[in-house]
Amino acid sequence: MSKVRIGIIGYGNIGRGVETAIKQNADCEMAGVFTRRDPASLSILTEGGSVYSVDDLADHKEDIDVCIICGGSATDLPKQTPEMAKMFNIVDSFDTHAKIPEHFANVDAAAKESGHTGIISVGWDPGMFSLNRLYGNAILPVGKDYTFWGRGVSQGHSDAIRRVEGVQDARQYTVPIESAVDAVRNGENPELTTREKHLRECYVVAKEGANLKQIESDIVNMPNYFDEYDTSVTFISQEEMDKNHSGIPHGGFVIRSGETGNGNKHIIEYRLKLDSNPEFTSCVLVAYARAAKRLADEGNFGCKTVFDIAPAYLSPQSGDELRAHLL
Amino acid sequence: MSKVRIGIIGYGNIGRGVETAIKQNADCEMAGVFTRRDPASLSILTEGGSVYSVDDLADHKEDIDVCIICGGSATDLPKQTPEMAKMFNIVDSFDTHAKIPEHFANVDAAAKESGHTGIISVGWDPGMFSLNRLYGNAILPVGKDYTFWGRGVSQGHSDAIRRVEGVQDARQYTVPIESAVDAVRNGENPELTTREKHLRECYVVAKEGANLKQIESDIVNMPNYFDEYDTSVTFISQEEMDKNHSGIPHGGFVIRSGETGNGNKHIIEYRLKLDSNPEFTSCVLVAYARAAKRLADEGNFGCKTVFDIAPAYLSPQSGDELRAHLL
Repeated sequence: MSKVRIGIIGYGNIGRGVETAIKQNADCEMAGVFTRRDPASLSILTEGGSVYSVDDLADHKEDIDVCIICGGSATDLPKQTPEMAKMFNIVDSFDTHAKIPEHFANVDAAAKESGHTGIISVGWDPGMFSLNRLYGNAILPVGKDYTFWGRGVSQGHSDAIRRVEGVQDARQYTVPIESAVDAVRNGENPELTTREKHLRECYVVAKEGANLKQIESDIVNMPNYFDEYDTSVTFISQEEMDKNHSGIPHGGFVIRSGETGNGNKHIIEYRLKLDSNPEFTSCVLVAYARAAKRLADEGNFGCKTVFDIAPAYLSPQSGDELRAHLL
Repeated sequence: MSKVRIGIIGYGNIGRGVETAIKQNADCEMAGVFTRRDPASLSILTEGGSVYSVDDLADHKEDIDVCIICGGSATDLPKQTPEMAKMFNIVDSFDTHAKIPEHFANVDAAAKESGHTGIISVGWDPGMFSLNRLYGNAILPVGKDYTFWGRGVSQGHSDAIRRVEGVQDARQYTVPIESAVDAVRNGENPELTTREKHLRECYVVAKEGANLKQIESDIVNMPNYFDEYDTSVTFISQEEMDKNHSGIPHGGFVIRSGETGNGNKHIIEYRLKLDSNPEFTSCVLVAYARAAKRLADEGNFGCKTVFDIAPAYLSPQSGDELRAHLL
């Protein structure tokens, strides 16, 4: 069987994660990294691996089965994904939940017209968490959904703190409140406010001579980011930051709490505990790249999400093997 | 949209669970209960619901979209499912893992020849647990699988104890060993023997004058069922049994423990905590009955398992709704 030849579009945390994930999947290979930077300036992890300008992507049409587009959801993906779906099978991790329907429509039109398969919003949320919300709702139609995130680094909140006057560096952890998670696990079906679900823990390196009280107040009261949460601010040294807070862990829980028959309660819980958010997301992207190639080979074109992909398409194993070993 | 008309074949715990689950799914309706007993002897939960002899099933070909076959895996399903797949779309919960390939082949041949869709081995293990093993393996190809069952009632082990001399009634709980689960959750990837994964807790009502020491010894040393486990035996009164041990709870965990990049660990955990094992299993069966009808309507015939079904087929919601609300 021929390998799935994957083009990596963009070389940030996710691009590097995809490159790493491909090495763990014997039926996949990297067809090249495509960057907006000067290709000569990039040092990649794969010995002998090729780096090209993203402007030359069209020249590699014959060498690539699936492009994994590793750009940001704010400005990159809404433009790149529909554009590239005209020429390639694609997978992206578009995660602006509110704009998914629009993104889907754009990619669907491009992919159908050109005869390609696109799978969008792949990762863990949206992605694996979404799948578990769907399975949970379909199995237990009478019930409640809960999603908790963390303990993990929120890049958006960390960036917001870094913009506060007097802040040199910052890391924000989103932390699910244990008593809330326990109440959900116990089938109590609590109504939870934003404040009751998550804490925000901030580790901050202040610039020399900065007003710490003012920094703390600016963070804690920041609208949208922190004002609706209980937020703790801990000042640390740059040395401690580099030593203890350089990782990008994340995770969380999706819980469906339902009831059947005569008051019988059921709890379905899906939990992720990830040392590296981007590396895990990349693993999911590569599994769905395998699916994208198979769907395209079957002539099943257009835009898909994780909801539309039969699980067997993600695995390198045959149906016989899966039934014998994993069912 | 027309409702999914479901025939319930067999009326034990699962049959009653399916009947209960159908009431929670507005797009489904019960087309009738089909029993091997005298239909007049059956009192069902649905007011005005029909009970027929299973011998008359063929007469209801036009009234049924999907038959959910609620028999046992030992002798009923290997015979019933291929037979009924010649005439109906079917879903079953065949759970003899080792014989799934054979059962699949038999149902596939019958369903393909007659133009029907069959989904076998639906429930939670096999079923939702299998799905999570597949997703976990596809996403984290470098890693280890762990499945723990319980705390929950094992009917097979309870029955085995009831066959011991001097035993009047018994209930056996399978209990995952917490320290083992914790070690797995911590990413320690332990090698675990059978004894290190689960305990077996037995509650026994002895007949008057029975030799309790002998009963305990007979249970603890019983080959295949108990000898490879640490087993506790607690003698209780029939009154206490009826009061505290009449439920059929179950559940468990599927954990994939994997690694990426430079030693980054990831834990994917899927957990079920079920007050009623048969009612939950039945909920899964009904969701897959919805899928079976849709696949049949599309002309996608033959035998399938949960691995082959795109998640969206399980939900009554449209693709647009799912993308807007659950993705």
